[in-house]
This record gives sequence, structure tokens and C-alpha cells, in this order.
Amino acid sequence: MGRAIGGHGVSGGVAAMAMEALDRCAEAATYTEEPGKVTRTFLSQPMQRLHGRLAGWMEAAGLHVRVDAAGNLVGRYPGLHPHGPVLMIGSHVDTVPDAGKYDGLLGVMLGVAVVQALGGRRLPFGIDVMAFGDEEGVRFGVPFLGSLAASGRFDRGLLERVDARGIAMAHAFRLFGLDPSRIEEAAYPPGGILGYLEAHIEQGPVLEALGASVGVVEAIAGQSRIQAEILGRSGHAGTSPMAGRLDALAAAAELVLEVERLGRSVAGLRATVGTIAVEPGASNVVPGTARLSIDIRHRRDDVRMAAVADLHARAVSLAATRGVKFVVTREEHQAAVPADPASVERLARAVADAGHIPHRLDSGAGHDAAVMAAIAPMAMLFLRSPGGVSHHPDESVRAGDVAVALEVMIRYLDLLADGFGSAGGS
Amino acid sequence: MGRAIGGHGVSGGVAAMAMEALDRCAEAATYTEEPGKVTRTFLSQPMQRLHGRLAGWMEAAGLHVRVDAAGNLVGRYPGLHPHGPVLMIGSHVDTVPDAGKYDGLLGVMLGVAVVQALGGRRLPFGIDVMAFGDEEGVRFGVPFLGSLAASGRFDRGLLERVDARGIAMAHAFRLFGLDPSRIEEAAYPPGGILGYLEAHIEQGPVLEALGASVGVVEAIAGQSRIQAEILGRSGHAGTSPMAGRLDALAAAAELVLEVERLGRSVAGLRATVGTIAVEPGASNVVPGTARLSIDIRHRRDDVRMAAVADLHARAVSLAATRGVKFVVTREEHQAAVPADPASVERLARAVADAGHIPHRLDSGAGHDAAVMAAIAPMAMLFLRSPGGVSHHPDESVRAGDVAVALEVMIRYLDLLADGFGSAGGS
Repeated sequence: MGRAIGGHGVSGGVAAMAMEALDRCAEAATYTEEPGKVTRTFLSQPMQRLHGRLAGWMEAAGLHVRVDAAGNLVGRYPGLHPHGPVLMIGSHVDTVPDAGKYDGLLGVMLGVAVVQALGGRRLPFGIDVMAFGDEEGVRFGVPFLGSLAASGRFDRGLLERVDARGIAMAHAFRLFGLDPSRIEEAAYPPGGILGYLEAHIEQGPVLEALGASVGVVEAIAGQSRIQAEILGRSGHAGTSPMAGRLDALAAAAELVLEVERLGRSVAGLRATVGTIAVEPGASNVVPGTARLSIDIRHRRDDVRMAAVADLHARAVSLAATRGVKFVVTREEHQAAVPADPASVERLARAVADAGHIPHRLDSGAGHDAAVMAAIAPMAMLFLRSPGGVSHHPDESVRAGDVAVALEVMIRYLDLLADGFGSAGGS
Repeated sequence: MGRAIGGHGVSGGVAAMAMEALDRCAEAATYTEEPGKVTRTFLSQPMQRLHGRLAGWMEAAGLHVRVDAAGNLVGRYPGLHPHGPVLMIGSHVDTVPDAGKYDGLLGVMLGVAVVQALGGRRLPFGIDVMAFGDEEGVRFGVPFLGSLAASGRFDRGLLERVDARGIAMAHAFRLFGLDPSRIEEAAYPPGGILGYLEAHIEQGPVLEALGASVGVVEAIAGQSRIQAEILGRSGHAGTSPMAGRLDALAAAAELVLEVERLGRSVAGLRATVGTIAVEPGASNVVPGTARLSIDIRHRRDDVRMAAVADLHARAVSLAATRGVKFVVTREEHQAAVPADPASVERLARAVADAGHIPHRLDSGAGHDAAVMAAIAPMAMLFLRSPGGVSHHPDESVRAGDVAVALEVMIRYLDLLADGFGSAGGS
């Protein structure tokens, strides 16, 4: 209900803190591995330098800062009771290569801003602002390393993975000043945190189309990733008459269009062929083999799996018609992760209290929130992405939307505190 | 008419010489740059060693051997008159990487075998058996270097081209013992040869489907090579709803199928998309750009150019429907090369005289014959390609078909000699 904050007319202060959060995202972007671009991977030197700067901002906001055993930067804001529950507010500080400034970073800066906005006021729960070290998975090819460690599901076998320069993850931890044998110490036990809240840019066009500043995430879509091959027969482009060809690319083209048709025909489904390659791959040779990747997502696992089965049947059928073979070489499925219903309701109420329509939407992309949901009730707030642009230097966010998000998050804390039945106070 | 030869009942001898030509192809295959594979590029050491062996076979057949200024091995069989006309019989001795044994090589070995079959008998014209050094264009990325030099159309600028190891062509000539400044000396003047005859495996399925040993080439198809781009908009595979996408690969898939439809709808047309690539090219990203190559061939240039125009219109239209852009980034056209009509008739008669149906067909692939046609009446004899397989270790040819080809070539020489109105004799 915005009691402590809205009641004090903090809107001007919130706007200023939102601007500061944006400025900090811009400054964070200067901690990069590639001059002129924003590229900051897990356990890199730019990440270590950013930790130093971010720790300063956290401390100024009243957080007690540490780097956990998995390379996550954690700022603890104590609650009324030393051993009381703790809400985690987080996102990640690594980036894709040649990234924008806001994917991940904005959620961390908003976490710091929320604590800042409390102005020292104690709540019936503590807050851990979490800056996860790896979500994008760029350096070692495995995403979510930070939240996997924090949720106690880090696979030690991953420590042997090497980056593009041949540096093993275990060694990278040591270079970062951490002891990889102690990585389990980063884990919060299941039920050990009161909840997980993440603010993130939408990275899609839904909120923009709605004309909305923010939206409440109801679920993080499940995902099927399929690698497939079409096996035809290569031939000379000049000497092979059209009639007898077994053109793997022509068959793959039909499959690409089937994937698109399927995506268009099922509400909420997203179906994409993102990669394609042919062999031999010469302009004067009929392709004998085509390889492609298919990405299928939906918030409902049954709908997604039915779509996968449907697509498989269509692929087998079109291949048979052409006399080529369709072979699935790899198939992975990730279940959808629903947000915690009570947290969704609370977040929707916070949006409404802040004077906005509480639009609900799904996340098509994976997030730290999907991992943390394994050990805590999860809520996620999306901010409008102008043009839907993300993973690109042109990625942006509106300052006004950041202020709305910050106000919503503050109201969310108050609503959560209300549930404890005791007013906070410093 | 098979007067001098058929009359002497040489069939048994022809069969033996055909077997020898095949054995020589097999031995030539051991002159390779890659152990276990057949790979022999222009001016390579294996080519130089093969020259030594091939020169021995030529000399045994009664040919006087030289390496011309462009690295072609030339064997001269004198005619009745020292300054009389010369018929060229040739093909190439370079190969694609991991090649078969017969593409090019068989034509050279049959040239040697034809002279061998003459048994010293002089004709009213001389014969130059030509082993072109480059037809495939593997080493320097430009095909037909041997025949271009022999026909006086070698572009000196090409001497600066470098191979994959950074060796300039001019330097490669020197390492081969040749002086690149003298390359023009390889040229035969226009009209300087009586005709050009080439035997070559079909590299396609037409003769096999007809159940024919050999066929007479009427024309070498013209070819259009188009490099095109489709420009859409990349987006996150999870966060971009299907409705608003500008998927470059989906548009490219429609184009691939249009190319195939076009090829199937015009008699004799061959239309192929042999390469495709997308950007960004990640499984979780909607492709923003697709690049592909289109290869269109037909024996009639007007039909081919109409097909190119038709395809362009279809591509622009399908791109417009999807809101993406279709851009041609490179376009090259090579006119069709008809065989010399009188030579085609003579070769067809030779086939009939040898007891076979004189099937006529087009060559969809380019050949030295297409280049030599610029300076001489050209005729080309195709041998059946089992399975249509070529440019592959499984490339093969039937021994019986080689014997037929050899007999046809011998009869072709006799028919040509008949035209001089004087019987030959040693």
C-alpha cells in the first residue's frame, strides 16, 4: 500500500534513484573485456573491478558486502531480527559479447536502489541483493552458474570445463581469489530464503505493444532444443537433372516453413530455426546433408511437448515424401517454471497500487529466477524493452519505466512486510 | 566406316587398350598431395611426378612430349605432313580435393590410347594429346587455367593470386621449372588447330538412365551464379512473438523452394541453392540475415536468362510479402557453348558406326572443351557415370564403356581423315 514510502511522497526521490540506477548501468558498461563494446564474462578481470565499484554502491546503500564462494557478489541488508528470514533480490552482472547495458545489470542496480530507498528503515526480513556472476554462460558454455551455485545445484564436474583460451573453470576461480573446493558454501538451503525477486528488461515487444511500463511474469516458458539432420544425396548442380535429386536443403527449407507454421498455429508457442548448415556447401553442388536447430517454447509443458511431437511427425512425413531421411541428433527439454502464485498476486497488487495496469505475461527467455525458483517462491518484474531489442548495443530502457519498476519493488517489500503483521521502523 | 581399324578386327586390341587406360588412371591416382586420398592441384609436386610417368606412356605410344609454358603436358603425334593441321585431344590432370580417379584423367589416357591404337599409322593431320594442368581451379580459385593459356586467353593478372599457403601463382610456376613471363607461348593461335576432341565421364545420371555407354555432347550449358542476401531482423527466439518476426531464414526457405519449383517447371533447367548461412546463427536467435547462392544452368541462354528474371521477380515478391529485403550481392553469367555442329554429326556417326545409338545430351558442367571452343571446332564424348557419382572417391566408369569410347574416338579420327580425301598409311 506504499505506506511508509508513498505516504512520504517519495516519488521525486524514487525518480532520482531510478536515474542513478541507470547511470550506474552506464558506468558498469565501461568494465569490459573489449574496448568499445560491452563484454564481461564470468570471473573476468573487468568483473572483478566491477565488483569493487558495485561493493561501494552497496555499502553506501547500507548493505554488508561479500563475494560468495561461487563468485557472486552479495550485499546483506539486515532485517529487524538477526536470524529472521531473508528476501533475495537479484540478477546477473555478466553479459553476452557486444552486449547492451541493462540485461541483468539493471536488476542488480534496482536491488541496490530499493535498499537505498528504505533509507535505513528495517523490515521484518532481511534483504540479500545478489549480483550473480554467470547467467549468460558465455565463458564456459554453461549458463546460470551463479544461481545454480546459490541454489545448491552447481555440478562440480563443470569445474573442469575450459574457456576459449584453455583456462579451466577451477583455475579461473583461483585467479579470481576463490577456492573452487569450497563452492558448495555459496548454496542457500532449500527454504532458506523467504523469496526471490528479480527485475529484468523484457527483451521482447509485448509490453511495448501494450504501452505498459512494467509487467508481472507468470511463468518462464519451457524450452525444447532439437538438433536435426536431413540426409539426402549430394550431386553436381550442373549434371544432376532436377527429377532425380535428393536435395537436403530443399527438404530442410520445407521443415523451416513447417516450424514457422507450427509456431503461428498454436497460441503462445514460439518455434524457431536459428541455425542451418549444409554439406558439401559449395555453390555448384546440390546439398547432400542439412543440419538445423529447432527451438520450441511455451509456458505449458504439455502444449510444448505436443508441438514437438507434431513437428517430428511432419518432419518424418515430408522427408519420406522426398526420399530423404530426417534424424534427430540431440534433443533437450526444460520444463516451464511458474512464478509463485502468491508472489505474482503481491507483485500485481504492487503494480496496481503504483497506479499502473498489472499486465501479466510470460518470459520466453530463461532467467536466474527460473533457477532460484527451485529453492524459493519466485517473482519477476519485467520492464518494457524499446523495440524489443536486447543482446545488442542498442538495448535500452526508458527512465520513466525504471522509476515505475523501483516504486513497484518498494511497494512489493511493504506488502510482504504487511504479511508479517508488524510495521517496520529503524 | 572403321576402314583401317575395324577392318583389321581391332576390337580385342581396343578392349585391351581400354583396360590399360583404366589401369593408368588408377596409377595416376597414386600421385597425390594427401595420402589415402586423390588430391592433385595445379603445379604441385605430385603433378610434376605424374608428368614424368605420363610422358613415358606418351612416348611409348609414339608421341613427342613437352611441357608448355603454362604447365600443360603436350604429346605431339605427327601427321603425314610436317606443317599439316593438328587435331587436339585433351582433358585435365588436376583434381578436386578427395577426388575420384577418372574426372579429367580418363580423357587424357584415352587420348594416349587413341594414338597407341593407330600403331604408327599416319593421318592427314597431326594429333596433340593435351594434359591440361588446371581445370578444377582448386589451388588458385580460378578454373580452366590450362585451357585458357592454350587458347591464348590467360589473364596475366592471375599470376599474382596466391594459394592457401600464400604462394603466388608466378612463384609456383618457377618452382615447377617454368618462366611465368613466357606463359603466352602456350597459346595456340585462333584457327591454329583443326579441332578439339574431349572424352569425359558424364558426372550425371543421363546416360545411365538411357542404358547407354556413351553420348555426344551438343552443348555445354550456360550458367548464372547469383549470391543473394535476405535482410530481416534478428530477435530472441524466446521473447519474440511469432506475429512480429522478420525471420530471414524463413524467407530464404521460401526462396529455396521457389528455386526448386522453377528448376522443375522449365524443361532442361537446373536450379540449385548450394550454400546457405544465417546470422547471428545461434539456436536461440531468430535469424536476421540469410545468405545463399543460386546456380542456374540451361543449354539455351535465353531460357536461362528468362529463368533468372523470373526468379528475381519471385524473390522480390516473397520478400515484400514478409517485409524483408532481397538483395543480389553478386551475379555472374556464362553463355552456353555449343559444340561444333559438323563435329557433333561426325561424332554421332562414329558412335553409330561402332554399333551404338548416338544419344545426344548437354553438359551441365563446364569443361576444357568449353574454353577450347573459342579457337577450334569442339566435340565432346561423354562416358556413362555409374550412379552419376563424381568429385568423390566412389566415382567410377565401366571398362566396357571405356572400350566403346576408345573405338568411337578411333572411328572419329578415320571419319575426319576421310574428309581430307586421302588415305593415311605409315
